[in-house]
Amino acid sequence: MKGAECLLRTLTANGVDTCFMNPGTSEMQFVSALDQVPAMRSLLCLFEGVCSGAADGYARMLRRPAATLLHLGPGLGNGLANFHNARKAHSPVVSIVGQHTTQHLRVDAPLSADIEAFARTVSEHVRTVACAADLGGDAAAAVAAACAPPGQVATLIVPADFSWSEAGPPAGLAPRAGFAEPDRCRVREIASLVRRGGSVGLLLGGSTLLDRGIETAGQLAAATGVRVFASRYGARLACGGGRFAPLRLPYFPEAAASALAGLEHLVLVECKAPVSFFGYPGRPSVLVPEGSAVHTLAPIEGDGVQALAALLEECGRGPGAQDHATRPKGSPPELTPGAELTPDAVGRTLARCLPHDAIVSEELVSSGAAVLRHLEAAPRFDLLPVTGGSIGQGLPVAVGAAVACPGRKVIALEADGSSMYTPQSLWTMARERLDVVIVILANRRYRILDIEMERTGGSAGPRASEMLDLRHPELDWVKLSEGMGVEATRATTTDEFLAQWTEAVKRPGPRLIEAVTA
Amino acid sequence: MKGAECLLRTLTANGVDTCFMNPGTSEMQFVSALDQVPAMRSLLCLFEGVCSGAADGYARMLRRPAATLLHLGPGLGNGLANFHNARKAHSPVVSIVGQHTTQHLRVDAPLSADIEAFARTVSEHVRTVACAADLGGDAAAAVAAACAPPGQVATLIVPADFSWSEAGPPAGLAPRAGFAEPDRCRVREIASLVRRGGSVGLLLGGSTLLDRGIETAGQLAAATGVRVFASRYGARLACGGGRFAPLRLPYFPEAAASALAGLEHLVLVECKAPVSFFGYPGRPSVLVPEGSAVHTLAPIEGDGVQALAALLEECGRGPGAQDHATRPKGSPPELTPGAELTPDAVGRTLARCLPHDAIVSEELVSSGAAVLRHLEAAPRFDLLPVTGGSIGQGLPVAVGAAVACPGRKVIALEADGSSMYTPQSLWTMARERLDVVIVILANRRYRILDIEMERTGGSAGPRASEMLDLRHPELDWVKLSEGMGVEATRATTTDEFLAQWTEAVKRPGPRLIEAVTA
Repeated sequence: MKGAECLLRTLTANGVDTCFMNPGTSEMQFVSALDQVPAMRSLLCLFEGVCSGAADGYARMLRRPAATLLHLGPGLGNGLANFHNARKAHSPVVSIVGQHTTQHLRVDAPLSADIEAFARTVSEHVRTVACAADLGGDAAAAVAAACAPPGQVATLIVPADFSWSEAGPPAGLAPRAGFAEPDRCRVREIASLVRRGGSVGLLLGGSTLLDRGIETAGQLAAATGVRVFASRYGARLACGGGRFAPLRLPYFPEAAASALAGLEHLVLVECKAPVSFFGYPGRPSVLVPEGSAVHTLAPIEGDGVQALAALLEECGRGPGAQDHATRPKGSPPELTPGAELTPDAVGRTLARCLPHDAIVSEELVSSGAAVLRHLEAAPRFDLLPVTGGSIGQGLPVAVGAAVACPGRKVIALEADGSSMYTPQSLWTMARERLDVVIVILANRRYRILDIEMERTGGSAGPRASEMLDLRHPELDWVKLSEGMGVEATRATTTDEFLAQWTEAVKRPGPRLIEAVTA
Repeated sequence: MKGAECLLRTLTANGVDTCFMNPGTSEMQFVSALDQVPAMRSLLCLFEGVCSGAADGYARMLRRPAATLLHLGPGLGNGLANFHNARKAHSPVVSIVGQHTTQHLRVDAPLSADIEAFARTVSEHVRTVACAADLGGDAAAAVAAACAPPGQVATLIVPADFSWSEAGPPAGLAPRAGFAEPDRCRVREIASLVRRGGSVGLLLGGSTLLDRGIETAGQLAAATGVRVFASRYGARLACGGGRFAPLRLPYFPEAAASALAGLEHLVLVECKAPVSFFGYPGRPSVLVPEGSAVHTLAPIEGDGVQALAALLEECGRGPGAQDHATRPKGSPPELTPGAELTPDAVGRTLARCLPHDAIVSEELVSSGAAVLRHLEAAPRFDLLPVTGGSIGQGLPVAVGAAVACPGRKVIALEADGSSMYTPQSLWTMARERLDVVIVILANRRYRILDIEMERTGGSAGPRASEMLDLRHPELDWVKLSEGMGVEATRATTTDEFLAQWTEAVKRPGPRLIEAVTA
């Protein structure tokens, strides 16, 4: 069996059956082998950052890796920003990168570059296949590495000649490490802290932000009075539907510090101690209140859900725990007909008919808080937030989530600035008829940077202000979207937005709404 | 003086007065300082690959660096593919990358990454500023490093707090290394080879592909009978206008090998021994004919133009050298009204009214040869070819060339596939009213990969073929272009294309023509 077919068969045998690709010459044999391996689904993206972001979104939903197939060092380069986000999300991804032939590697060809160096910026596991016979074993090892708790981007670099050489049979399923069991001593120590009755906060990350973790944390809160917080940069957060809602740490450090103020003990569950997004003049980077002790209930590679359950058991469920774990579903926020279209109005409108069990990929940057607070009253949905802070993840993550969960509506909440990093995502959405509604809040400005400029002590004179200005020319998202085959409309009033949103969620996507906001 | 202002003043004192930027929070102080340092021109790009490609195009035209300003590791990541191309073009570029504050670097923030590791993939010179007082000196050193022959991408990483700290006065002009003088012994040795009268070929690269080098090489050919070739991947090539035309080495190795066949001696001038773009089964990577001796007249960091002049002097100009250095200007190619719109027809049409002294940024991929051969009969122009092979350089390079040479018409020759990597370039063209005509040959397919699939021994079954297919949906370049503020039309016949092209070159740009080709 040729190397290319061996690689694809090893991937599918190891549970990797989806590949987001932007191939070139060195990867043609893998593309050719798709006709021999129908179990591998392949999706073409027109820019590599769409591939890496889509694999991230896919992994966040299914907790198993997709593959990406990229072309040599610079192709991988274009994927790095979203691999960075995947790395911070602890998303398992198998990144396959084509390399020149072993003979061609010895000459200085135009596309020669140190692919391992590119890969190491985002991957702990980087391996270049040394001979064709290793292909199966190396591919299985890459999948196992990607899945090693808490999940990572594993890179496999494949010289082109190995793909057309004889490589032997594909490798079978490689053994995988499980998430670490809770440390019972640690659980008892933290339980005794909690029972002592001081001010204790739990900060949830990783898998504890999903259904079972949230539910158990809610029961703990009800039984013991602990305060429960959600890490801002978790990969996926179960929201809405009247579920218990931990307080998601705010973006700005003053607000985050004030949320955590007064805690004597901060207990980390599958996350690290909270830090601010950026450093600012005269402000600490760490958000843990001074004098507060930090404890780890479960490390990021641990099973935090089990640890929470053990803690609840240890503390005793107490009366009413079950009741307080859910809260009454709020009534949908009011709309004022004819009101100006603001992020607040967009949030209110979205909340009124957010489809049940939607997946919301959010990259609103400056408008996020104003929009998301209204969604608390919405039916249950999964939120896929910014993890690594590299802008341009929202649309690709929506692609990957829609591929992973074909039965669920995906909503991509974007800004006009953030959408311009990976707009090519729209083409893949159209090509694959993905059920995505994209809402672009167009304020014609890098508005977050107006705020950050002031916070870092800068002043925006006319020339500086011009660098944050997205008018001249205005981006026309209806044309951009239609240019890539996605139906689109523009809303400039709340009434228009309500009508377009109501209609968009009723039909299969993709569909884009440009909401021109004040 | 604050660090940010010190940096900008040092850059301008060292001749760097243009900055292509996509800033974030860590770079706000630099943006703010633009109002204090009006000598620095700043241009906003909506994606980092536009910044890096624009700096490459700028450097290719002016032989001096522009700066780029990018945001942390992932922002730099998005710029790497075009920095790779700049590296292979030996373009001097000063890449400024913001870093977290020194305090914030100690915590694991979402955007924390090893920026130096990102930078080293494309830069030999990588320095992180260690204290605010070093900013001026480090910035001057980065400019000097960028300009060190043959030119490179020099990276300066600046922790955000240094930009708002006191940094002292800016540094003055740093001393720069010049291009190495010709080695007289080497010149005499090569002259004696040439005089001996065997089959000798000169392969030109670097600065020898511009006016004076081409002219001197033409005189050498006339005086001595040497054959003159142009490296395929030089940064810039003076063409047309009846000038002497060295034979540009073809893309496919068979054609390149056949062009070089029979040479006893291959003399390299500012370039390395030629190699094929990719390795293929059963083909050598090196294109030097077997048994041919390779000599270096000038290394890539040498002054090849002076070396050629010294060689000419040594060989004796001989009678007729001056005459044979130019050739009669050919007549423009014929057009057949009503003919199908093919790459050949596009080339013929472009040649009929290519503006005088145009700059042609070419990234046509599969259609390049068919179009460019007709331009030999056109008035003089500079060709900016693919250098590093990372697709997505053509539009950004056109941005940079237009900024560098405001009096000259820039023509970007693109394919529909290649344009989708950095389409955001169009917005910066519109914003800066750059005089660019973009011609997109839309064949709705990654056609080069059909050829490469076959060459690498793969076969394209239905699933493989689908991965090279850009229909479903078709990209609408008129809408995409208008969506970013650039006027656009579509041509589907030769007559339409002729009319649109004739009109486009008469008016200031930007202007896009989508040529739907068979």
